[in-house]
Amino acid sequence: MAAQLYLEDLTPGTRFTSGEHALDEAQIVAFAKAYDPQPFHLDPETAKSTFFQGLAASGWHTAAITMRLLVESGLPLADGVIGAGGEIEWPRPTRPGDVLHVESEVLEVIPSRSQPHRGMVVVRSETLNQRGEVVQRLTPKLLVFRRPSETVPK
Amino acid sequence: MAAQLYLEDLTPGTRFTSGEHALDEAQIVAFAKAYDPQPFHLDPETAKSTFFQGLAASGWHTAAITMRLLVESGLPLADGVIGAGGEIEWPRPTRPGDVLHVESEVLEVIPSRSQPHRGMVVVRSETLNQRGEVVQRLTPKLLVFRRPSETVPK
Repeated sequence: MAAQLYLEDLTPGTRFTSGEHALDEAQIVAFAKAYDPQPFHLDPETAKSTFFQGLAASGWHTAAITMRLLVESGLPLADGVIGAGGEIEWPRPTRPGDVLHVESEVLEVIPSRSQPHRGMVVVRSETLNQRGEVVQRLTPKLLVFRRPSETVPK
Repeated sequence: MAAQLYLEDLTPGTRFTSGEHALDEAQIVAFAKAYDPQPFHLDPETAKSTFFQGLAASGWHTAAITMRLLVESGLPLADGVIGAGGEIEWPRPTRPGDVLHVESEVLEVIPSRSQPHRGMVVVRSETLNQRGEVVQRLTPKLLVFRRPSETVPK
């Protein structure tokens, strides 16, 4: 089990790699029906004649899977993965059969001036498929807390 | 039913308003179990003692609901809502009982130089709750196609 990290444990360059998630057609279609009902996410046949030239996962599905990978294994933060926002980019489609994992790197650690017990951490999280191709690039700003003082002898 | 729009129908300042989505605790917990299993998204009681001080929807759940609202009523694009990426920000939590809608405005229309049949459109899509508070601010870059030439007499 990964260590549970606090603000003071993170420095620019700290890297993490998540476990894997195997994606299939049924998952792609189920997510699309619920949240992104467009032909290229819903039906493999219809998808062939669209821009995607075949079934592709909703970008928000890729984002949701990425979040699960970060929460479960990809970003071992003691108080959870709490994002204020960030940049997201989908350089290529996620496809049925893809096996995804997330590689993250801390870019910046910004202690809060007004709230000494916390800070913002900028991370770059790349979601890659089984060929090592980046299907999503996310640069979240995360709210990260310091280790509670009672657990650290002064 | 909204008009189906093409690249040439959009100009900076064009605005759209989506229908509504009513969110409840069961939806929040179900999404969190599948994609963002953290205490503040899973259990109302445990959530009280977290940063969120009560159950909050995963930001990716708010994003997914926003996408559904955009696809079904909020961005009537003829060839679909195809995002290459963008900036996302969650200025405040989405809560059980919130009724969400999305207000969008075209910021920029950039015809492609190499691909004359398409272009990029930058949109600002704000997701608001029933009190008019912004719960998500998304600035997607969308791939938008021109009207097929056979349907427009030259």
